[in-house]
Amino acid sequence: MFTTTTTVRVRYAETDKMGVVYHGNYALYFEIGRTEAIRHLGYSYKDLETSGILMPVVELHTKFLRPALYDDVLTIKTTLPLLPTNHLIAFHSEIYNQAGKLLTTGEVVLCFIKADTRQKTNMPDDWLEKLAGYY
Amino acid sequence: MFTTTTTVRVRYAETDKMGVVYHGNYALYFEIGRTEAIRHLGYSYKDLETSGILMPVVELHTKFLRPALYDDVLTIKTTLPLLPTNHLIAFHSEIYNQAGKLLTTGEVVLCFIKADTRQKTNMPDDWLEKLAGYY
Amino acid sequence: MFTTTTTVRVRYAETDKMGVVYHGNYALYFEIGRTEAIRHLGYSYKDLETSGILMPVVELHTKFLRPALYDDVLTIKTTLPLLPTNHLIAFHSEIYNQAGKLLTTGEVVLCFIKADTRQKTNMPDDWLEKLAGYY
Amino acid sequence: MFTTTTTVRVRYAETDKMGVVYHGNYALYFEIGRTEAIRHLGYSYKDLETSGILMPVVELHTKFLRPALYDDVLTIKTTLPLLPTNHLIAFHSEIYNQAGKLLTTGEVVLCFIKADTRQKTNMPDDWLEKLAGYY
Repeated sequence: MFTTTTTVRVRYAETDKMGVVYHGNYALYFEIGRTEAIRHLGYSYKDLETSGILMPVVELHTKFLRPALYDDVLTIKTTLPLLPTNHLIAFHSEIYNQAGKLLTTGEVVLCFIKADTRQKTNMPDDWLEKLAGYY
Repeated sequence: MFTTTTTVRVRYAETDKMGVVYHGNYALYFEIGRTEAIRHLGYSYKDLETSGILMPVVELHTKFLRPALYDDVLTIKTTLPLLPTNHLIAFHSEIYNQAGKLLTTGEVVLCFIKADTRQKTNMPDDWLEKLAGYY
Repeated sequence: MFTTTTTVRVRYAETDKMGVVYHGNYALYFEIGRTEAIRHLGYSYKDLETSGILMPVVELHTKFLRPALYDDVLTIKTTLPLLPTNHLIAFHSEIYNQAGKLLTTGEVVLCFIKADTRQKTNMPDDWLEKLAGYY
Repeated sequence: MFTTTTTVRVRYAETDKMGVVYHGNYALYFEIGRTEAIRHLGYSYKDLETSGILMPVVELHTKFLRPALYDDVLTIKTTLPLLPTNHLIAFHSEIYNQAGKLLTTGEVVLCFIKADTRQKTNMPDDWLEKLAGYY
């Protein structure tokens, strides 16, 4: 399996009046994890878009176990459980705080589409070849 | 069942470079739907917090079917499928655009906790009594 | 002078751990005020973009006098002190809470540019003609 | 003068449909710059809050010269032009992209207040002593 980790520090703006990270902001952390996973593979999501392919999110499932706090340094663990076989790709994410506690888990399903026609397409061949080595 | 609707206009800040609403922002629209659902019942989430009870989100499940665009007027339909029987409450949300197209569905599970001890608690009795009439 | 008002209710997501609206979020409220001011004039910023003109913000000046709180209903008063004479347009904004207290003032300068070339351009003639009646 | 730099990568969520970073999000970048400036001094804003002192923003002035783009690595240069002499503190910020181009400048004035009474207070003595060496 292809797994990468990256870290992010919680910003003041990301907290809410409950004193913890607003639940909607975990989508941003998952995004950071995916972006860095792709970069770790040797590519960039930015370049993918420039090449004419977009990856809109089609499903997001999140479980919130423990709150993240302001200034926490979070570790985002991003895993690709299965090699994509069609236009969909599903990532699994786990977010831990600096004490090693699991705070949040996420499943994010994205779709490869062509920017101009918005038609479904597949993962680029070179991405697939590079990923294949992990499975 | 208890169902309410409210509307929200998409802000420029809520779009991303794909030209559509950033997927993470739907959590905010669901929140608006729940807030107005509670207000429609005759209560306010703000008053609940003042009384010492918080409702953190513990699960969020979203399916993104079609994109919302800048300046769209979205209708958020919020339903409480079941009367809560313990410390958890689950809302179902549907978001439609001004053409009546279903854009997004969401399931949000929240937990009633006491603000001071962070211990689980139940929905206030008066909320429960008022809701009971809908089931 | 051209002056319009609109209202917005503070979202939970817009607060921070200080228990008040995060200062960066007032830029969004000012944006709502401008959008509704343009709509009040009979146009829409969305249509302007569709016609090939963008209005990026080039300056933002904000003074924060009193905090806005969760669930507050804010009144955003948007004024165009002067009729634009070149590619720039400056709005003045004042935000009041439901008790009529002035919370925040803002000066926002935007620039008219062509979407394709990113060159400066002027306000559309029909906007200018319609506005002229207010000065 | 006390000057520090830190970097931040632009998130997808921070862009808008104009294809650039939404202007309101620079407030978050300035905040990151200040937070890291304080950490560089040997303290933390989080600890300051724990000790009972808050620093709400009272003024924000921003000039937007060039747009920041998705995935850009921005350098935030944060300077304290003057040693505070009362309850106010003013930071100057400059944001550069990876090509070294100046994108945005900001002036942010904050106020030291006591969390419990919301009364004005001064910068902690140990912060002041440590900063004094830079002036």
